[in-house]
Amino acid sequence: MPRADSASERIVYLTGGVGGSRFLSGLVRRVSPNQLCIVVNTADDRDFFGLHVSPDLDTVVYRLSGVVSGEGWGVQGDTFFCLEQISKLGEEAWFRLGDKDLAMHILRAKLLRQGLPLRSVTERLAKRFGIPWRILPMSDDPVETWIRTKEHGWVHFQEYLVKYLSVPSVLDVRYRGIRAARATQEVLEELERASLVIIGPSNPITSIGPILALRGVKPLLRALNKPVVAVSPLIGGRPVKGPLDKLFLSVGLEPGSLAVASRYRAFLRGIVIDQADRSDAEALAKNGLQVLVADTLMRTQEDADLLAGATLSFARGLSALPNCSSKTA
Amino acid sequence: MPRADSASERIVYLTGGVGGSRFLSGLVRRVSPNQLCIVVNTADDRDFFGLHVSPDLDTVVYRLSGVVSGEGWGVQGDTFFCLEQISKLGEEAWFRLGDKDLAMHILRAKLLRQGLPLRSVTERLAKRFGIPWRILPMSDDPVETWIRTKEHGWVHFQEYLVKYLSVPSVLDVRYRGIRAARATQEVLEELERASLVIIGPSNPITSIGPILALRGVKPLLRALNKPVVAVSPLIGGRPVKGPLDKLFLSVGLEPGSLAVASRYRAFLRGIVIDQADRSDAEALAKNGLQVLVADTLMRTQEDADLLAGATLSFARGLSALPNCSSKTA
Repeated sequence: MPRADSASERIVYLTGGVGGSRFLSGLVRRVSPNQLCIVVNTADDRDFFGLHVSPDLDTVVYRLSGVVSGEGWGVQGDTFFCLEQISKLGEEAWFRLGDKDLAMHILRAKLLRQGLPLRSVTERLAKRFGIPWRILPMSDDPVETWIRTKEHGWVHFQEYLVKYLSVPSVLDVRYRGIRAARATQEVLEELERASLVIIGPSNPITSIGPILALRGVKPLLRALNKPVVAVSPLIGGRPVKGPLDKLFLSVGLEPGSLAVASRYRAFLRGIVIDQADRSDAEALAKNGLQVLVADTLMRTQEDADLLAGATLSFARGLSALPNCSSKTA
Repeated sequence: MPRADSASERIVYLTGGVGGSRFLSGLVRRVSPNQLCIVVNTADDRDFFGLHVSPDLDTVVYRLSGVVSGEGWGVQGDTFFCLEQISKLGEEAWFRLGDKDLAMHILRAKLLRQGLPLRSVTERLAKRFGIPWRILPMSDDPVETWIRTKEHGWVHFQEYLVKYLSVPSVLDVRYRGIRAARATQEVLEELERASLVIIGPSNPITSIGPILALRGVKPLLRALNKPVVAVSPLIGGRPVKGPLDKLFLSVGLEPGSLAVASRYRAFLRGIVIDQADRSDAEALAKNGLQVLVADTLMRTQEDADLLAGATLSFARGLSALPNCSSKTA
């Protein structure tokens, strides 16, 4: 149901994993394909057995093509015969790659090896899944989030998340390769011409953080005279999924809406927080932010539709307001 | 049931696809692991989606580890979810790669990409399947059998066999890469110290042909003062499986035991032919060959055991005879 008055609107949506893709499933029902560009974190990417796994791109593609599993990642009803065999043959197989899912990683690795950049590979694969929205990996260059843990030293974020189930204590977070990496020209151009930027309810440290850490991205957002709004991924200071609370504590921040806002303060104009966090609204407003209090837990498609709709209206409303965020930059 | 008197015996077995691996399943029950070396054709190898598929090595490994399917290739009870997804995503998927089977190709491709030669990759994978016999790919270098067809021009042998179901007319056969390829040092050393060489009931043109075409192999076999025996893959002039009759006709040979023997005449001392071809025995003997007439169709493990046992006894018996083959070289 695109609005007639928003034909020239250009929304850039920054996202990471499951929560961000749930919100996206609502967003795409509110805007037409040519109004939306989805910029996806690739710092979770990892090579498994010579295949290129890009968990956040996959989550977006599976979600938008309607094949995502109930857990929010991987393919619905997938089987694990290949991975079980790989495991039997002595390989570490803690990352659950289903048989259908493997098709994606096999083809991505094949196309990358042919010399195509990740953006083109992503475009091709999304097309094959029949997805009309523009999905852009944040970069063609390898970036990897690594976590320094008390128990296991430095581990890849996926290893921390999946192999160690986010149990180890977090001492530090690094985006390996971030200095040499560049945001793609497409990402920078989309941000330049955006009339609205929405940051999904994704982990600000491991999902959105790498996108923002790419050279040129933050200055563009700061200079953008258009609303930038974020949806907090925390409810009552706790993540719906993932280890964000732990990660916040590791960088000395109390997990909550204020911590989320602080990661985006250089450019954020509005924030959507959960009803459970409405007591944060005043402090957020004092930081110059517009605040929308809503139900942010998305259990159903309807939840996602409602949240995306409310966020869109909220963000559009901010276009009329003077840019307050520059004060907090 | 290894024979006590054959402790120092060293058998080199040359093989290709399904028929050769069936015979092998009988052979391994007659000799101890340290008496046998299996040299396998790799000119059927092909890259699919960036994975390294080595059909003849796989057939041997699956056969010897007891997981081979009833068809003689691939893994018993395998599923095809990944391949179906790959196909849905627009890739040609005529080569049936099962989900469990894919584990092999994924790991092989990974190890090759790490820089390991195919012989080491094969050794590692065979070990992981718990196989005690020495399996040697004929070469670490890429060789590919291509078939010139009337209908489709030059096609890879697997394409001819699987995609086109061996229907097109064969005009020519080439082993691409054969001049640059070298037999591995291990293969040459095994042939040098062999006390017996058995050529399995495999296609003399597309399975055994490439092994023999590697520089140094034929001269070694010719110079070997030990029995070299072949098991004919034809019964009544027809192959049990595959397009050998067509291939023989394409090179101007009448399909039959004599055609098989003619491909090996430079070094062959004995040949095992089927009861159906007993009328060829005289002509074969005239060519200086010892002949064993046996039931060569292997429907059951017992068939394979009997044929392998009879072939072994026949070959061992030839050790006592003067080398007649040199006359026909």
